[in-house]
Amino acid sequence: MVTGVLYGVGLGPGAPDLITLRAARLIEGAAVVAYPTLAGAASFARAIAADLIAPDAREIVMDVPMSVERAPAQAAYDAGAVQIAAALDAGQDVVCLCEGDPFFYGSFMYLFARLSGRYRVEIVPGVTSITACAARAGRPLVARNERLTVLPGPLPEEELRARIDGAESVVIMKVGRHLTKIRTVIADLGLTDMAVYVERATLPDEVVLPLADAPAAAPYFSMILLTKGADPWL
Amino acid sequence: MVTGVLYGVGLGPGAPDLITLRAARLIEGAAVVAYPTLAGAASFARAIAADLIAPDAREIVMDVPMSVERAPAQAAYDAGAVQIAAALDAGQDVVCLCEGDPFFYGSFMYLFARLSGRYRVEIVPGVTSITACAARAGRPLVARNERLTVLPGPLPEEELRARIDGAESVVIMKVGRHLTKIRTVIADLGLTDMAVYVERATLPDEVVLPLADAPAAAPYFSMILLTKGADPWL
Ligand SMILES: C[S@@+](CC[C@H](N)C(=O)[O-])C[C@H]1O[C@@H](n2cnc3c(N)ncnc32)[C@H](O)[C@@H]1O
Ligand SMILES: C[S@@+](CC[C@H](N)C(=O)[O-])C[C@H]1O[C@@H](n2cnc3c(N)ncnc32)[C@H](O)[C@@H]1O
Repeated sequence: MVTGVLYGVGLGPGAPDLITLRAARLIEGAAVVAYPTLAGAASFARAIAADLIAPDAREIVMDVPMSVERAPAQAAYDAGAVQIAAALDAGQDVVCLCEGDPFFYGSFMYLFARLSGRYRVEIVPGVTSITACAARAGRPLVARNERLTVLPGPLPEEELRARIDGAESVVIMKVGRHLTKIRTVIADLGLTDMAVYVERATLPDEVVLPLADAPAAAPYFSMILLTKGADPWL
Repeated sequence: MVTGVLYGVGLGPGAPDLITLRAARLIEGAAVVAYPTLAGAASFARAIAADLIAPDAREIVMDVPMSVERAPAQAAYDAGAVQIAAALDAGQDVVCLCEGDPFFYGSFMYLFARLSGRYRVEIVPGVTSITACAARAGRPLVARNERLTVLPGPLPEEELRARIDGAESVVIMKVGRHLTKIRTVIADLGLTDMAVYVERATLPDEVVLPLADAPAAAPYFSMILLTKGADPWL
């Protein structure tokens, strides 16, 4: 029997109509979908794709516990990979739902690392949160020969400072509880005036504000853009 | 009369089914589309969207001449902006077609700079070439707290060397005639083994090769990825 194909499908930043035509077709036709959840919370990826999932599709849910230890999360992905492998062995395709793009800070990589040696894996790229946030903020990210640096907010304060200082356009991901630290670094570098805060871009409760006016607490789905803005060079 | 809306619509990296549902709907309904061409060559953006453009849609073409001077290109965008503004003033929406994402090294920024002060502009983010190339190469771009650096190939050799040396995951855009220079830098840094060359990702004539096996000459639509690949950290 021919084994199934594992699809790692990017869903874009949140608005369901920012899903690609290819991703929509694959999800609509999927008999088996898979996605992780964090500590029993609802899956953002599943919510984005909800209207496309067939009512009788089987859902493989990998619940990743909240823990500083690696072992519990590893065990969750190990168990999910076993279930996905069994479906693939039975000849079924499995569509793994991924917020944004699967290969851009996506948890799909943990399944890719476990399964890509043994099965055919197809990645369907998706709209990332960085260009979605830039679009919603009305701030071009990079033009011509400019450089772009993408930094995760959890990096240590000194590393963030050094990396932002030597950079041109900067995107800071995974802001959440690191907001105060990031704000301090940006203020120290004198860059607050060019910084934009974007929360839940493309969703109905989206927030776009100058960093100076950002709330005191940021949710996980938030980002800070440091760009020069529209540049009428040409 | 209410003026029209200018849409800057990302079309993704080339495969027509990597267009988003929102972009497809906007293009199908557009009475006026606009796009630049380079020195009379066919527009890649128009080719991606070809099947969606209504047969009776008006097409505003901005032909940008090949020149090291800025003035001729400026004149082309100025003239295009005048035509687009006239359509917007007449109450028509204008859908500007953009390869990849409009705010990620996209020429749409030149229209945005000219028109966003006077008209309502909506950006529809698209799948960028960086995650499309990563998908086709089977190489995750960034995970967890990794940093991503995006560099344009036209940067001077010494700057490329310094920027790649201090970086983690690196994407080099706009390879084209800069291939030999980029190869030298990557070889000098001892990174050739981890470098992947991707040309015309997601198109029928796509090329994905280890950099060591890349052709001697690269087309404009090519990219080099320097990533660690799948990392089974979890
Ligand atoms: C684990 S990463 C996943 C990124 C995703 N794979 C992508 O391609 O954008 C999660 C981070 O992405 C960013 N993010 C994702 N969606 C977002 C949205 N709609 N608005 C703002 N930030 C978002 C936030 O910085 C968040 O902490
Ligand atoms: C002017 S930039 C436009 C980038 C585009 N707006 C995006 O979001 O990806 C052109 C560069 O993008 C890269 N590129 C665009 N499409 C590509 C594709 N299908 N395959 C490989 N590289 C591509 C190449 O490096 C090319 O030189």
